[in-house]
Amino acid sequence: MDRAALEALLGDVAAGRVEAAEAAVRLARLPYADLGVARVDHHRALRQGMPEAVYGPGKSPEQCAAVVAELLGHGQGPVVLTRSDEDQRHAVLSANPGALVTGRTLVWRPAAPRDVAVVVVTAGTADLPVADECTAVLAAFGIGAKLLADCGVAGLHRLLDHLDDLTGADAVVVIAGMEGALPSVVAGLVATPVVAVPTSVGYGSALEGITALMAMTASCAPGVTVVGIDNGYGAACAAARALRP
Amino acid sequence: MDRAALEALLGDVAAGRVEAAEAAVRLARLPYADLGVARVDHHRALRQGMPEAVYGPGKSPEQCAAVVAELLGHGQGPVVLTRSDEDQRHAVLSANPGALVTGRTLVWRPAAPRDVAVVVVTAGTADLPVADECTAVLAAFGIGAKLLADCGVAGLHRLLDHLDDLTGADAVVVIAGMEGALPSVVAGLVATPVVAVPTSVGYGSALEGITALMAMTASCAPGVTVVGIDNGYGAACAAARALRP
Amino acid sequence: MDRAALEALLGDVAAGRVEAAEAAVRLARLPYADLGVARVDHHRALRQGMPEAVYGPGKSPEQCAAVVAELLGHGQGPVVLTRSDEDQRHAVLSANPGALVTGRTLVWRPAAPRDVAVVVVTAGTADLPVADECTAVLAAFGIGAKLLADCGVAGLHRLLDHLDDLTGADAVVVIAGMEGALPSVVAGLVATPVVAVPTSVGYGSALEGITALMAMTASCAPGVTVVGIDNGYGAACAAARALRP
Amino acid sequence: MDRAALEALLGDVAAGRVEAAEAAVRLARLPYADLGVARVDHHRALRQGMPEAVYGPGKSPEQCAAVVAELLGHGQGPVVLTRSDEDQRHAVLSANPGALVTGRTLVWRPAAPRDVAVVVVTAGTADLPVADECTAVLAAFGIGAKLLADCGVAGLHRLLDHLDDLTGADAVVVIAGMEGALPSVVAGLVATPVVAVPTSVGYGSALEGITALMAMTASCAPGVTVVGIDNGYGAACAAARALRP
Amino acid sequence: MDRAALEALLGDVAAGRVEAAEAAVRLARLPYADLGVARVDHHRALRQGMPEAVYGPGKSPEQCAAVVAELLGHGQGPVVLTRSDEDQRHAVLSANPGALVTGRTLVWRPAAPRDVAVVVVTAGTADLPVADECTAVLAAFGIGAKLLADCGVAGLHRLLDHLDDLTGADAVVVIAGMEGALPSVVAGLVATPVVAVPTSVGYGSALEGITALMAMTASCAPGVTVVGIDNGYGAACAAARALRP
Amino acid sequence: MDRAALEALLGDVAAGRVEAAEAAVRLARLPYADLGVARVDHHRALRQGMPEAVYGPGKSPEQCAAVVAELLGHGQGPVVLTRSDEDQRHAVLSANPGALVTGRTLVWRPAAPRDVAVVVVTAGTADLPVADECTAVLAAFGIGAKLLADCGVAGLHRLLDHLDDLTGADAVVVIAGMEGALPSVVAGLVATPVVAVPTSVGYGSALEGITALMAMTASCAPGVTVVGIDNGYGAACAAARALRP
Amino acid sequence: MDRAALEALLGDVAAGRVEAAEAAVRLARLPYADLGVARVDHHRALRQGMPEAVYGPGKSPEQCAAVVAELLGHGQGPVVLTRSDEDQRHAVLSANPGALVTGRTLVWRPAAPRDVAVVVVTAGTADLPVADECTAVLAAFGIGAKLLADCGVAGLHRLLDHLDDLTGADAVVVIAGMEGALPSVVAGLVATPVVAVPTSVGYGSALEGITALMAMTASCAPGVTVVGIDNGYGAACAAARALRP
Amino acid sequence: MDRAALEALLGDVAAGRVEAAEAAVRLARLPYADLGVARVDHHRALRQGMPEAVYGPGKSPEQCAAVVAELLGHGQGPVVLTRSDEDQRHAVLSANPGALVTGRTLVWRPAAPRDVAVVVVTAGTADLPVADECTAVLAAFGIGAKLLADCGVAGLHRLLDHLDDLTGADAVVVIAGMEGALPSVVAGLVATPVVAVPTSVGYGSALEGITALMAMTASCAPGVTVVGIDNGYGAACAAARALRP
Repeated sequence: MDRAALEALLGDVAAGRVEAAEAAVRLARLPYADLGVARVDHHRALRQGMPEAVYGPGKSPEQCAAVVAELLGHGQGPVVLTRSDEDQRHAVLSANPGALVTGRTLVWRPAAPRDVAVVVVTAGTADLPVADECTAVLAAFGIGAKLLADCGVAGLHRLLDHLDDLTGADAVVVIAGMEGALPSVVAGLVATPVVAVPTSVGYGSALEGITALMAMTASCAPGVTVVGIDNGYGAACAAARALRP
Repeated sequence: MDRAALEALLGDVAAGRVEAAEAAVRLARLPYADLGVARVDHHRALRQGMPEAVYGPGKSPEQCAAVVAELLGHGQGPVVLTRSDEDQRHAVLSANPGALVTGRTLVWRPAAPRDVAVVVVTAGTADLPVADECTAVLAAFGIGAKLLADCGVAGLHRLLDHLDDLTGADAVVVIAGMEGALPSVVAGLVATPVVAVPTSVGYGSALEGITALMAMTASCAPGVTVVGIDNGYGAACAAARALRP
Repeated sequence: MDRAALEALLGDVAAGRVEAAEAAVRLARLPYADLGVARVDHHRALRQGMPEAVYGPGKSPEQCAAVVAELLGHGQGPVVLTRSDEDQRHAVLSANPGALVTGRTLVWRPAAPRDVAVVVVTAGTADLPVADECTAVLAAFGIGAKLLADCGVAGLHRLLDHLDDLTGADAVVVIAGMEGALPSVVAGLVATPVVAVPTSVGYGSALEGITALMAMTASCAPGVTVVGIDNGYGAACAAARALRP
Repeated sequence: MDRAALEALLGDVAAGRVEAAEAAVRLARLPYADLGVARVDHHRALRQGMPEAVYGPGKSPEQCAAVVAELLGHGQGPVVLTRSDEDQRHAVLSANPGALVTGRTLVWRPAAPRDVAVVVVTAGTADLPVADECTAVLAAFGIGAKLLADCGVAGLHRLLDHLDDLTGADAVVVIAGMEGALPSVVAGLVATPVVAVPTSVGYGSALEGITALMAMTASCAPGVTVVGIDNGYGAACAAARALRP
Repeated sequence: MDRAALEALLGDVAAGRVEAAEAAVRLARLPYADLGVARVDHHRALRQGMPEAVYGPGKSPEQCAAVVAELLGHGQGPVVLTRSDEDQRHAVLSANPGALVTGRTLVWRPAAPRDVAVVVVTAGTADLPVADECTAVLAAFGIGAKLLADCGVAGLHRLLDHLDDLTGADAVVVIAGMEGALPSVVAGLVATPVVAVPTSVGYGSALEGITALMAMTASCAPGVTVVGIDNGYGAACAAARALRP
Repeated sequence: MDRAALEALLGDVAAGRVEAAEAAVRLARLPYADLGVARVDHHRALRQGMPEAVYGPGKSPEQCAAVVAELLGHGQGPVVLTRSDEDQRHAVLSANPGALVTGRTLVWRPAAPRDVAVVVVTAGTADLPVADECTAVLAAFGIGAKLLADCGVAGLHRLLDHLDDLTGADAVVVIAGMEGALPSVVAGLVATPVVAVPTSVGYGSALEGITALMAMTASCAPGVTVVGIDNGYGAACAAARALRP
Repeated sequence: MDRAALEALLGDVAAGRVEAAEAAVRLARLPYADLGVARVDHHRALRQGMPEAVYGPGKSPEQCAAVVAELLGHGQGPVVLTRSDEDQRHAVLSANPGALVTGRTLVWRPAAPRDVAVVVVTAGTADLPVADECTAVLAAFGIGAKLLADCGVAGLHRLLDHLDDLTGADAVVVIAGMEGALPSVVAGLVATPVVAVPTSVGYGSALEGITALMAMTASCAPGVTVVGIDNGYGAACAAARALRP
Repeated sequence: MDRAALEALLGDVAAGRVEAAEAAVRLARLPYADLGVARVDHHRALRQGMPEAVYGPGKSPEQCAAVVAELLGHGQGPVVLTRSDEDQRHAVLSANPGALVTGRTLVWRPAAPRDVAVVVVTAGTADLPVADECTAVLAAFGIGAKLLADCGVAGLHRLLDHLDDLTGADAVVVIAGMEGALPSVVAGLVATPVVAVPTSVGYGSALEGITALMAMTASCAPGVTVVGIDNGYGAACAAARALRP
């Protein structure tokens, strides 16, 4: 239920078309549905402009399926399942067919496409799974993304060759592991929001992404913002917040 | 020099009003001015929509004064000096009077006020210097900010009492030290960009802000973005990117 | 052997009903029984008000079975096996049937139910195994627990909806991974003991629970206490100490 | 304002002795008073059974004095200022005389003494400032404390000699730096709540208290709970929660 | 070749019983034998009073077998293989039968038993594999060890019951994971060398043994010495150094 | 395409033998080829004197094969695949036969042997896989290497015996895990470039190579340089930079 | 009171020369003297073969003077004050003259010189204060020490030149900061106990001594033992344990 | 004494011009001179091609002066004092006038200028003190350096404008704090040795230079080598090794 649906409901009450008691029942459902192991947050679309995505790890396939079903059955917006494993996907899709599947991310009822342009840049090929999670979630928000893969700073011309794409975007998501240098370079080239995603790509002193995370939050470029390691979902949400209608 | 000034110059060349050689001289000045110890980046306003701010620590008072003078003398936009100490402020203001002084931050030629609303929330009173840096830099961009101080999560009603301020803002900057919990709570309440600033407030396991930084980048709330520890300047730039005209 | 049994024995000696030598033999058994690889601490019920629980990892199935048998055979109180794996459970239950099995936790001879109320709150669904360990051990102490699952701070209304449960409890155990913000919020709402359990839920900068541990020990809420990562057993013991008869 | 005062007010409204509008005004004051730089939380006594203590670091002497004055002027319970420096103490005491001063901790209007016994144990002499903060805050709650100083585990007999004190206490606060071993030993001896406080005493691998913090949260003794490094105030609050009337 | 053998050789040269050239050939063999992938250090018995033990991890079964064979074929002292896996043991024992096998440790040609007494104490049952490595290597040196298992500080009486064993030993090896408190307690009770071995037993804030390592090197007990995590072999060598004939 | 090929092309344009348009097409290919998931950097030989090596982890076997094919098909220099797994090797070699296979490293079209001498020293046998990666990549550059294995500092004579090799080399690569002491010793003996490679060999406080990395960058020997943990490839490239023709 | 004095007392009781009650009074004094802020451990000489040294930091000058006076007045053995500052030294020496002062270490009543030889080696000149603390405390035990300063591994000949000193010693203390490589080299050369002391000498990745601590506990040389960072006192106690009469 | 001087001496012995005994005396002086607190390493010029530089911190002014005097009196090559403070400089220059003073670095008897070109690049103005140490030491080796200051990656054009300087250099030293991204970019542009120096410039997640150190050793650019934090001296030595005659 989005803000428009809420306002319509309240309007109906004001106009006497809906009983206050009936409205209370519907609104009581708003905040969340208690499934015992999960409290499904139907209120989120209203508060945050985004549905509660279901995070797979730590949930049984049955729990995943139940939460997705609750979200699909009692809301109207997009529904997202992230970081699913094979068993979870099987259970969830059996019970809730029709999802778009991108790697480990599933999307049902994506929002209508909007006229905003996000560019997603990765430093290396191994960062692609994170980029895929990001673009799939952006698609759920109705936001298209152009992917520029393998543009690491050791070969700057690969990035500079796409300067027009970068400066023309409404927001840029920059995904990099190892030393995490790419967001500083990109943020020096564009005026739009730059969301940096450190990845766990690399070994040894890459420290499973901590080095990139620290580097990005210590960036010399003004206004770089950072989300969690490998958190393509979070980057998509951050971009959606910046580009909310 | 902003984009409009650049396009005017190029138009003059196209129309024959300015010699190509003359334009080249002016454009050659664009990228930066080499002061020996610093390369002043006049190009930044064009590329990033923001001037190069001067970061005080590690520069002599004379170096600070020279860089500020260069920026004031060869550009038209706002100029910012951050983290200045007493000696630097004395030297810089003697040579370049007329700045707005907010704590350790100085601003010359702030942009005209714009019609956007940023809310800056702090968890505690000790976070105020970071908030001051942020609001001063936002003012340089022409962006006003409403400050909500001392709204830590241990007394939620202090925050919830300002829910209208939060949901009505175009962006929210959340500043917190210690356990850094506040951005997760705020991001659960609003749909706008949330820029979280970990601070070095706290002791012991607060780890000089590292704990808050880690907590914020591990936030369970979707789309929280994080800048560096105590980096009020960076948060202002991030907000300005999200709210660029 | 609990304090009452000890006092009875000493009374018997004083009254001449038991020989001093015989009492010495029984008391000599008190401190511990040396099984070669383990020293079973029968004294613990007397000293700490709680039996020695058997921690599964690092013990062979045979060792687990022997220690449990020793505890069941020479004491009268509850016996607990935690973090058991499949092989251990099989061996232990074959030799010592009759346990209550909750996930990886087994309980024999739980204490009689007491009239105290503990609320166990989790931030997410993935924290449930830790909550299960906690409630199973509380049950061994005769303490019932009400579970509130999936009340993370990004959807505060899910928590605030249960304010009566929280304020009515004798103690609250708060279980959270990622940024570990929930205990600060809960401790701001109740006057009772708050035992925070950081979990290893989350990835990247959650640092396998270290981030939550650091955040919880840096909490801005007064009087939050913290046990080890994923240590549902320890939280139950802490609650039992606070609520000892 | 405590719960009794609140219930009296509500009773007055119900009985028509107080106008609803008047009650609203009084209740509106309840949550907090906005002093601009701080939101004084008058609601805390009601919610948490403890007043908001004022934490000195990061506040100006004037801010400290104002917050203390607000708390003294609009409440009835104890007021605490912790970690004050010389200048803060001077300003606060000039404006608000009558405090009990214990090291860096100031207490006004301590609660009436209660009949509960807390034992505070320190591993070394250098841990005494943390113990002093703890006992001063306990006194504000009306809780007396017996101090056992310098009982580190390298000389166990110094601790065992006070076994009766330990087992007779209603709660034990254990304060230790360096390797932080003392809480494990104490928790093995008593059945009551054990609140462990790691201190920054020690050098090198003591890591400013992090080693003790990690050791205490990894304790092999069941039910040890831990507060932040050097956080004597937090330990007192934790004990007060466990011993609330 | 030990010092006696060396002196005999040199005496033979001095007396003309051995040609200088022949002695040179034999001595040239002394330092090491280059097997291509390993340089077997025959000199070590002379320099350090102990043979080079073969550390299994990272070596192929064939490499293990070849190094052991070289050591057995060109020396007279004990030979040790540590941390072997199943495949390594099979290959090494096929080529070099006759070893004493204790868990993952193999010993050939142990030294004659000496009249010194080492006590090896463990905090828990899960520390036993480290204790086994230690006692097996001590046996290779001809040093017997008494094992006291499961004497963690949460049940001090289990340790104090063996005070005579501890004070009567020539050296004590103390093995503990989790908070690593046991060496501090033991070192407070005995005057002999105390070698502390942190183990990776425990989870969460035990940090795979780092917490115990830090705690032990920050010990408040004077003269505790520490070897690497899980390094039972190193502890045995340290004890052997302290007790060298 | 190397610098000579580029200069030839430009000469052709200058002499009218090649059309500018045609040259532009060829040069446009220079920077990189966009394979969608990877941007193959043909420019690298020109800029850095070395081809882009393909790093296996995170790439599918098909991606590896495609990138190698692109590099072989549109360049003339050596091509390297590192850290390949079994599946990747199978796919790549099926599509691109003729590689030299050394452990996980594959080399096609190695450069002609040059007259420079690199010595690669390892502290232990378990460091050999890193040494193999290094020598294989050096061979791709046409640089031969002499391997001195198992020369750890605990048996210095094994190293000092090869002093002539060390002092006669044009560069020395020193590979060590655990405490990482070997580079300091070697750098004290030679005047040539010393490239230190920390390895993840060791356990416990070796911290997966971090200890060796920190130790090497804190070396007391002047001019030791360090590459990433286990990065034999990087060490070879560093040596090649120092010895470029 | 040492073991001989204790046995004499007990003999007196057995022979009737001392009343049991009188002996009890004297023995009651044995364990410790409670000075309020410190418990002076007179028992330590009996248990550990060493007096309780007074650690200066965190104690007031008056506390230092009182504890030293207690130790001098009620015991017969050596008394040590370590890490004293100027004010403490002034207060302690005024009240308790006659100490040997070595840097920050004071010794009263040193034991009679014994016939054992310890060599103390430092890697650099900046490690000398730690070496001084160690040799001063060794002198208190009656143990002489030969100091070899500035023998870092980058100039091995400086160490090898003293091979006879090293191999002739009864124990070797090795003190090093930065990469902490020296103990591994020394332990490869001698058969005696090697006590390694990491120091906080160095900057950057030396991490205030943590790097050296980690390196030393990860040493490839068998039987290296490690004490805390900068802990010259602990190293002396460890040597004294290894060389106890 | 350099290699030529050594060979001349040996030739004199061979030709009978110098007595073997006399040569032994001179050579005995070679390795080092024992000043008690320091062993001055005259051998280093021979072994490493560079004199022992004197590191100021931890040495008294008198010690500094004595070591410099020893080096000047018994050698012929350059002598360097680094990280000196005001008192040290005063003492050293009084006793040993004639040094070139660059910030905290002093150089006596610099080598004759050589025909090699090193470029030193810094990311920011605050990195200049490290650059100064580096160029001063390079000058001692007879190596000139061109300094490019303030070329951080957030304004790439400042760097790219100097591409000819970079590609024309024989070696490049890259000095950067914060996220440490600059070496990756530079190493992607040149074929020569790249020595990266992390600096402690920055705050918060810059972690006093650890972030930059980790980032640089995790660099995606092949062959980047790294020295210690702020170690301009080490970078100069590394460059000198790479460019040795």
